[in-house]
Amino acid sequence: MLAINFADVQTAAGRIAPWAHRTPVLTSKTLDRETGKRVYLKAENFQVGGAFKFRGACNFVFSLSPEELRRGVLAYSSGNHAQAVALAAQRAGAKATVVMPSDAPKAKAAATAGAGATIVHYDRMTEDREAICRRLAEESGAAVIPPFDHPLTIAGQGTAAMELLAEVPELDALVACLGGGGLLGGCAVAAKAIRPGIRVFGAEPELANDFWQSLQKGERVTIPPPPTIADGLRTLAPGKLTFPMVQEHVEAVALISEDEIKAAVRFLLERLKIVVEPSGAVGVAAALFGKLPADVASVGIVISGGNVDLDQLAEICSAA
Amino acid sequence: MLAINFADVQTAAGRIAPWAHRTPVLTSKTLDRETGKRVYLKAENFQVGGAFKFRGACNFVFSLSPEELRRGVLAYSSGNHAQAVALAAQRAGAKATVVMPSDAPKAKAAATAGAGATIVHYDRMTEDREAICRRLAEESGAAVIPPFDHPLTIAGQGTAAMELLAEVPELDALVACLGGGGLLGGCAVAAKAIRPGIRVFGAEPELANDFWQSLQKGERVTIPPPPTIADGLRTLAPGKLTFPMVQEHVEAVALISEDEIKAAVRFLLERLKIVVEPSGAVGVAAALFGKLPADVASVGIVISGGNVDLDQLAEICSAA
Repeated sequence: MLAINFADVQTAAGRIAPWAHRTPVLTSKTLDRETGKRVYLKAENFQVGGAFKFRGACNFVFSLSPEELRRGVLAYSSGNHAQAVALAAQRAGAKATVVMPSDAPKAKAAATAGAGATIVHYDRMTEDREAICRRLAEESGAAVIPPFDHPLTIAGQGTAAMELLAEVPELDALVACLGGGGLLGGCAVAAKAIRPGIRVFGAEPELANDFWQSLQKGERVTIPPPPTIADGLRTLAPGKLTFPMVQEHVEAVALISEDEIKAAVRFLLERLKIVVEPSGAVGVAAALFGKLPADVASVGIVISGGNVDLDQLAEICSAA
Repeated sequence: MLAINFADVQTAAGRIAPWAHRTPVLTSKTLDRETGKRVYLKAENFQVGGAFKFRGACNFVFSLSPEELRRGVLAYSSGNHAQAVALAAQRAGAKATVVMPSDAPKAKAAATAGAGATIVHYDRMTEDREAICRRLAEESGAAVIPPFDHPLTIAGQGTAAMELLAEVPELDALVACLGGGGLLGGCAVAAKAIRPGIRVFGAEPELANDFWQSLQKGERVTIPPPPTIADGLRTLAPGKLTFPMVQEHVEAVALISEDEIKAAVRFLLERLKIVVEPSGAVGVAAALFGKLPADVASVGIVISGGNVDLDQLAEICSAA
């Protein structure tokens, strides 16, 4: 029994519809030519907050009762999840508190604060963020919104695949990147329900191959903090709830090198004129660098987000 | 009497429909908040060849007779027009020759050659490109496609405004950047025909203010080669045909500094996740930096293109 089924994704779709963007599906003759496939990109870089994370956060926040909303919500994240929770809470009129390392990127901290969230900083070297979060939750009664390993979060992320398949029903395959597995888990459940014959693939950095290792071993493997440029995919282990979804539905996980990730970001900038963060380009890299089966003729790829700092973008552009 | 009327734009729209993209109109709450207006971006960076230039080139090429097409087409340009002519000719099955300086950006030369065009290089310091072009035209009988000052080119560019107003009919104002004036001229004619009360504005770099000076003086002024980063707007003087259109229809020309252009490119990268070349960001800069009248509540802005080299993009990102 998986932690969610397709009905949960459908419920999420209705719940987030007033708030989330139905992001466009992009195509490009150049991309088709380079990959030898018909490629459909679900552009979550154009989602509210610049990443798919808003879907899960919104589904969670708008599932809370008025009484729960009154006590506020709480999240720990230095990245897209923080911003997503802040933006979802703002729409629900709830107070959000986000626990962030003191050295989090200034742009992401500013965006999170800009959405009205209170930021609690901690020192990554000396303090335990989960303990801080627990203490804050006990004090305020706020609901903690997990970044990936929760049924409501996962069901929210699955709505991306639902929209993609509504627009392009005849896909041979679906690809999403693997951080904690919320995106791929939710999307796999939705896609397999809508189109049982679809083949589902994950993509993760070679340097952060926790899912790949875990699938080989048949159990969740924890890796040391991975030094990949794809900062959204630096989770140390598959989620308890997401791993069984990936085990059941995902045919294979493509491993992508750091150079391939950067080349995919550059390709998307130069040829498609869109800004995609390194994590978001991992799925596109799988298609660009021949890591999907040759008999996959059409593939939908979820571009997870577009939140990349300008100095990092400059570095990636210069590395060409 | 202007060189084109709205019927010419309508004819162009039908002629290019099978080949050109109907580009999306983008909106952004952040952009609306920053500008205090409702802003609608006509995203020609997603056009075939990455710029609006394909519209005019296509309209020209598909106006030629089979006999003329057999003799091929000819253009001189180091930028977006070269690529546009090459791509339009490719679709028409015609041979294209493009006269380009030997030091043209490699990416643009490669894209032009990639579309099957023959490139004739010349030395900018010692050779006269118009003389080369004339000689080639005499030898081959090829049709020369001017980059902006031709009725067919101008009418083609006007289709961008036609599409924008079809999607957002209630606009108070329209803004386009000013190079040779083909885009703004064509768009102004179309917009005023569709919605006579619309206010039309131009935007050009302070460093390349040939239109602004010409409007002050009431006649076409030629400036020295302008050192603006907006390489698509480095024309030295308004076109003979486009200048009267701007005189008749354009209320004012906003002048944009180099820093404002770069800031607009960065804003579009960071907040809207799209790649816009410096020339394409000039109109957005007019809105972002308060250069449009306060009583303009809703404005459509044509983003002219997205062809920027990665090293230039890196430089712009680093300048923040």
